[in-house]
Amino acid sequence: MVHDLVNQLRSFLPPEAVLFETEDLKPYECDGLSAYRQTPLLVVLPQTEKQIIQVLQLCYKTKTPVVARGAGTGLSGGALPHAEGVLMSLAKLNQIVEIDAAARTARVQPGVRNLAISEAAVPYGLYYAPDPSSQIACSIGGNVAENSGGVHCLKYGLTVHNILKLRVLTIDGECLEIGGQSLDSAGFDLLALMTGSEGMLGIVTEITVKLIPVPEKAQLVMAGFDDVQKAGNAVANVIAAGIIPAGMEMMDKITIHAVEEFLQAGYDLDAAAILLCESDGSVEEVADEIERINTIMLKSGATKVSLSRNEAERLSFWAGRKAAFPAAGRVSPDYYCMDGTIPRKHLADVLRGIEELSVEYGLRCMNVFHAGDGNLHPLILYDANQPGELERTEEFGGKILEMCIHAGGTITGEHGVGMEKINQMCSQFRTGELEMFHAVKAAFDAEGLLNPGKAVPTLHRCAELGAMHVHSGEERFPDLPRF
Amino acid sequence: MVHDLVNQLRSFLPPEAVLFETEDLKPYECDGLSAYRQTPLLVVLPQTEKQIIQVLQLCYKTKTPVVARGAGTGLSGGALPHAEGVLMSLAKLNQIVEIDAAARTARVQPGVRNLAISEAAVPYGLYYAPDPSSQIACSIGGNVAENSGGVHCLKYGLTVHNILKLRVLTIDGECLEIGGQSLDSAGFDLLALMTGSEGMLGIVTEITVKLIPVPEKAQLVMAGFDDVQKAGNAVANVIAAGIIPAGMEMMDKITIHAVEEFLQAGYDLDAAAILLCESDGSVEEVADEIERINTIMLKSGATKVSLSRNEAERLSFWAGRKAAFPAAGRVSPDYYCMDGTIPRKHLADVLRGIEELSVEYGLRCMNVFHAGDGNLHPLILYDANQPGELERTEEFGGKILEMCIHAGGTITGEHGVGMEKINQMCSQFRTGELEMFHAVKAAFDAEGLLNPGKAVPTLHRCAELGAMHVHSGEERFPDLPRF
Repeated sequence: MVHDLVNQLRSFLPPEAVLFETEDLKPYECDGLSAYRQTPLLVVLPQTEKQIIQVLQLCYKTKTPVVARGAGTGLSGGALPHAEGVLMSLAKLNQIVEIDAAARTARVQPGVRNLAISEAAVPYGLYYAPDPSSQIACSIGGNVAENSGGVHCLKYGLTVHNILKLRVLTIDGECLEIGGQSLDSAGFDLLALMTGSEGMLGIVTEITVKLIPVPEKAQLVMAGFDDVQKAGNAVANVIAAGIIPAGMEMMDKITIHAVEEFLQAGYDLDAAAILLCESDGSVEEVADEIERINTIMLKSGATKVSLSRNEAERLSFWAGRKAAFPAAGRVSPDYYCMDGTIPRKHLADVLRGIEELSVEYGLRCMNVFHAGDGNLHPLILYDANQPGELERTEEFGGKILEMCIHAGGTITGEHGVGMEKINQMCSQFRTGELEMFHAVKAAFDAEGLLNPGKAVPTLHRCAELGAMHVHSGEERFPDLPRF
Repeated sequence: MVHDLVNQLRSFLPPEAVLFETEDLKPYECDGLSAYRQTPLLVVLPQTEKQIIQVLQLCYKTKTPVVARGAGTGLSGGALPHAEGVLMSLAKLNQIVEIDAAARTARVQPGVRNLAISEAAVPYGLYYAPDPSSQIACSIGGNVAENSGGVHCLKYGLTVHNILKLRVLTIDGECLEIGGQSLDSAGFDLLALMTGSEGMLGIVTEITVKLIPVPEKAQLVMAGFDDVQKAGNAVANVIAAGIIPAGMEMMDKITIHAVEEFLQAGYDLDAAAILLCESDGSVEEVADEIERINTIMLKSGATKVSLSRNEAERLSFWAGRKAAFPAAGRVSPDYYCMDGTIPRKHLADVLRGIEELSVEYGLRCMNVFHAGDGNLHPLILYDANQPGELERTEEFGGKILEMCIHAGGTITGEHGVGMEKINQMCSQFRTGELEMFHAVKAAFDAEGLLNPGKAVPTLHRCAELGAMHVHSGEERFPDLPRF
């Protein structure tokens, strides 16, 4: 069966574009969520849209599952291969087709790296705003699949807010052009529907992204607090003042110490929490906004506030935050990065809840997150070599997500559901919404061949988990903190 | 058959909530697009979500079409009744359920007027940004159905960018909760899919909208140009400078004269085009931005630039623009308002094209539009009492929309497709996209009972029109101006 498929694929793909030997498949067995591994049936590396169409038509005819993969930096297992399926790497579609400086758009192929778009736009004084931490490596196609965010999405939006048009292939190889150059487009909003659909509705072969002018200036406020509650309130106060910072990040004590030991960013080791709040725009705007932010931080009880005096200092303030993940890797053999979102007003409560769970499970947890939009990234520290620790970590993580739903939030801010959070989907949604997700999936892919088993759980799976729907506000989880 | 339905409806609705006498139905026979009229089978006026569910379950059981209607201010005939269907007015669901000043959200029922939300938010210094010209009368439910914009949507976005959560009833009466308080939500983006779906996917019973702080200051630049091309370039230059004005409106000569005769706004009668460019934000930001806009206008060849010196003057500058439609009504017995969007760079070319068509059809056309996002609102002036003029007007309007598609734009910027532009959908989309629209529709409403015949044309209809798909760039319309 494999060999039939290989032969048919080789009738239109060069031999090196069809991998089936175990050692060739190994590099594709997982994405950024390495706790989940699966060897695919085979891997294809198409180089043109025409080749992708041929692969899809063949898979459609032979009822072979297809899992698309960009750079494989995803953190929720969205690109985890299917044992009986074809893993389609889009890495070779890596051309920046066109930059239209007047229209402020770039037309790119899915395999183009996120950062490469901004690099290509430098000559025009433009850049592409969404900046996931993985932006050096992650591909724009993957960003579209997961609706990726980043440090600046509070002000500049997620991927869906920064793309205009998509070329999409359906499972039977039909090409759709969706979206356009305008704010709105006629017909149903398939552009938004496709964005964040985790490769389950179609294969994106071209993306038209928005480019925006590089801000004249950026400046950073670093504020230390002796109490997480105060830091949480400071975030609320900045937003309430009508300021939309370019970035608004929070780190807790254990994170501050981990990163400070790692690279001496000059963080205040006595602080219970540190806020990094960035302003960008024209020189006048930034001066005005930074002054207002500074005042709010002090009024909110900051024990220490520093303003970056130059670009070098701004970057050194950021250095610690950006190094949080490697720092976690330094203080623990393994760590598990969660991605839940909650209403800002519940920041302090949820952090306390995480602390309680940390004690209960006997596992340390570093908290570093996009405070402005309430997107938490708890890093649970564990040792995979200690029997049972991974399981305890996953259970701990699951509890954190339940708590986010419980607080009126959601189980993913920017990393997607993938395989990782598929059980929590049963908690966040009820049968009605899940049925609608399946109906939409069926409208695009009735046979369920595109990335099967990801993102949307079967009703059967949810039933087996015991219909654990948490209606935010309801007291379904007496063991979780109240809000 | 009508009477069976009436009796069943009256079993759960009060008698005054079920209308079936011809004189009672008359007020509902059209929406803002009065050129299209149809008397519904009957009208229901539910007051609660429970009643709506009962109506839907009955209609689903009896296969009766359902057309939802808000305030009936829509301009594309989206709420045009169905001869064999129930027209469901949501006017009685007019409660502002909750305003959460801390979260900056308002939870409202669909019948609440757009402006009423901002009025209720005044005590908190907040407002709801999207402001269609009809905002005094139009309902938020209708705004969601049409994804309405307004003068400020260039900076603040369309309805879809300003709502967080929806309660939606499917045709079989199932209640869905979609979206959430976060930037992103898990699962497919049903929130965006529902927004602008023109009542074809479900009935919205509650909307959670974003509220934003009322800007500290707003100021307006009015610039006159002796040449439309120069005005178009000025728009491009402002955007290219990285400025996102709160509003950026253009009026052509015939509009300037019509409004000036109407209410003496002090517009420059020698100008070939006038730009109104607004800045809002903190006092410092506005001062800085207004200065930059002023400089750009002069560099772009403006013959006369005035800055509003106070709030009264700002409003008087706006008065003419806001009175453009009534002014059109004054200089012509009837007018037809179009709504196409084009890439900014083609503004001048498309305006020239409209001028040529105006001569060809012997009909005057006033051009007033949201220049910043390329959203044109040509007002074709005609006299319905002159035999053939309405038909000529519709043909003229159709040509304008073809030209927008031809220029790489879209047939609707903010008014929706409804009945009005259903033929042009055949021009903008190919079979593949149209099939996908129908598949999505079927996922929500397999029987096609919700607002049948609107927004998405059947493939048969398009075939009859002669598969007139215009691929932007392609030379499918030799009689239309080149780009």
